[in-house]
Amino acid sequence: MKLEFTKMQGAGNDYIYINGFETTLSQDTATRLAHQLSNRNFGIGADGLVIIDPVDGADAKMRMYNADGSEGKMCGNAIRCVAKYMYDHGIVTKEKVVIDTLSGKKAIDLVIENNFVSEATVDMGAANFVLSEIPVKSAEAEWIDYTFTTSIGDYQVTAVSMGNPHLVTFLDEIHDLNLTVIGPVFEHHPAFPERINTEFVVVHSPTELSMRVWERGSGETMACGTGACAVVAAAVRNGHSPAGEWITVHLLGGDLAILYNDETVLMRGPAVEVYKGSIELVV
Amino acid sequence: MKLEFTKMQGAGNDYIYINGFETTLSQDTATRLAHQLSNRNFGIGADGLVIIDPVDGADAKMRMYNADGSEGKMCGNAIRCVAKYMYDHGIVTKEKVVIDTLSGKKAIDLVIENNFVSEATVDMGAANFVLSEIPVKSAEAEWIDYTFTTSIGDYQVTAVSMGNPHLVTFLDEIHDLNLTVIGPVFEHHPAFPERINTEFVVVHSPTELSMRVWERGSGETMACGTGACAVVAAAVRNGHSPAGEWITVHLLGGDLAILYNDETVLMRGPAVEVYKGSIELVV
Repeated sequence: MKLEFTKMQGAGNDYIYINGFETTLSQDTATRLAHQLSNRNFGIGADGLVIIDPVDGADAKMRMYNADGSEGKMCGNAIRCVAKYMYDHGIVTKEKVVIDTLSGKKAIDLVIENNFVSEATVDMGAANFVLSEIPVKSAEAEWIDYTFTTSIGDYQVTAVSMGNPHLVTFLDEIHDLNLTVIGPVFEHHPAFPERINTEFVVVHSPTELSMRVWERGSGETMACGTGACAVVAAAVRNGHSPAGEWITVHLLGGDLAILYNDETVLMRGPAVEVYKGSIELVV
Repeated sequence: MKLEFTKMQGAGNDYIYINGFETTLSQDTATRLAHQLSNRNFGIGADGLVIIDPVDGADAKMRMYNADGSEGKMCGNAIRCVAKYMYDHGIVTKEKVVIDTLSGKKAIDLVIENNFVSEATVDMGAANFVLSEIPVKSAEAEWIDYTFTTSIGDYQVTAVSMGNPHLVTFLDEIHDLNLTVIGPVFEHHPAFPERINTEFVVVHSPTELSMRVWERGSGETMACGTGACAVVAAAVRNGHSPAGEWITVHLLGGDLAILYNDETVLMRGPAVEVYKGSIELVV
């Protein structure tokens, strides 16, 4: 069986995209293929596999599988690429699309240049600072600029959920941080029963931040969409950045723009088609 | 400009292959594309770029570029894939091909299964134990089971050149070795003016070895063709393995079979087409 695919990336987060309107892949097959095809030496090479399926009540459904074959709920960098794929391939002809995910339906606004999508804005939902819901084990209700004591020193941290748990710490310098050492100290701290993603942030100006991220289970990554949202939510709550304005966040994999208000967080960023391919599968 | 390519791998060594019989790529363009397309998040993702060009006096010429854009001389895992590409695409119809490289012309014997190449045997040339030619700085003429003193202890080593410098050390166990610590101690030791590739080897039987390799400039890799040849040359010289017989070498990326004799070293291994793709290049 020959499988057609498109390799796409958003801020360096790269997935293999399959058009489920043309090819039907069962859960079992998708799990197996995600594991096999994501391998960067023996397979196509990607962070995972995304299947764009038809669905009732939305323009499409995004099914995403990590490189280890496990199913993911939602990825802000991937869903922009799904929206671009749908518009560029004529699955939709409108500039606002609704995509269903395991985290619910997401609305995406497209930026069109020369008949193709160049950027997309995703409504990522509201940030949540309630510690018990993030979850963080603490007698406090929130951690906003909270002094957090670890085995390698004290950090001023802000805890926030964007559907997944984040801890944000503002520092003077992040370029030389050895995250391989620092990241696991946060990730495996007993205060975080579901572990935690940690963002290390420099504030250049109220509307420009730089960050590095240590993702639970993955280590340092090029970009983390929910992490960028958490960073801006924390920057607003700490008085570094204004609510209701677009804030530029520099990540290793590129820039994202985030707009925070109390009801929701919007994320705008690039969606890029890298190449098309076809692979002969032994069924 | 749309560039057609084929992704192939041999023992996990993966390159982007371009048919130079159909597409002409200048040195400058190849250098730029190797750098851009090898990127595993933003590009196609590979160890580098290989161009199969027409040439006088051989069936083809292999031009290879590393992921950083620098030009490589020869790669035993890549040249098997070049030979497979040529046969499978009808550029040659014979089972013995001659491919020119920056290290000279190489003869390759193909194994055909169902009209496609499954394996190939490459004549890798002679092993050379002369220290001054490897090069190794030493008052000795050769290092065969030589006691080599480093900052992290003494190792019994054998030095050998397969066109590039190798140091082979036989150990009881290699699975738990921390090569990130050990590898650089060898690579940057003052005895090696051009640095060195180091192989850590377990002898299971005279015809079966396992190895891990630390490549100068690259760190630990899945497979190193010249390294596997150097390992078997060292095993023969140390009396672990017989000359003139096929020895199986297990590497992280798969198995290679090596046959050593004084005049030459033959390497047999897999060549696999992973997928075909096309990428739109902004010229």
